[in-house]
Amino acid sequence: MYVLLVYDIGEKRVNKVLKICRQYLDWVQNSVLEGELTKASLETLKKRIERIMNKEEDSVRIYKLRTQDDLTLEILGIDKKQVADDGII
Amino acid sequence: MYVLLVYDIGEKRVNKVLKICRQYLDWVQNSVLEGELTKASLETLKKRIERIMNKEEDSVRIYKLRTQDDLTLEILGIDKKQVADDGII
Repeated sequence: MYVLLVYDIGEKRVNKVLKICRQYLDWVQNSVLEGELTKASLETLKKRIERIMNKEEDSVRIYKLRTQDDLTLEILGIDKKQVADDGII
Repeated sequence: MYVLLVYDIGEKRVNKVLKICRQYLDWVQNSVLEGELTKASLETLKKRIERIMNKEEDSVRIYKLRTQDDLTLEILGIDKKQVADDGII
């Protein structure tokens, strides 16, 4: 499946959560990752995030799609993912 | 169509952009809005954002779906939208 993940995590925990998310998904913008994941990998990712996050303060929204083809993406301004891939960030 | 919008906008401009986005979409989490939009409304929204944003520094990702039914949402931790709707934020 194709997954978009957006997080809002307290400062003390955000770097740990980002590090884990990056093992499963591509970073595309501040607090946003996306990518193709199996159901099993997503379950593992969720468990790993839940171990770190504060469930009363933090929030992670996971949008699941059958396939990336269900999405059309438009970017206004710079494509931060592209900038990161080029090694500028 | 159903739209997810995530922005990464410099501090000086972010409040103006958020204010505009809120006229078209529902705020769901820090830097994330979503909602049903017509093609025409989306074009207007994009033009209004582009008038304010700095295209060399800021980034707005707009994910478009045919229908909300193409998405399944899972939330870990708190649902910031719900908290906001309840008037706690």
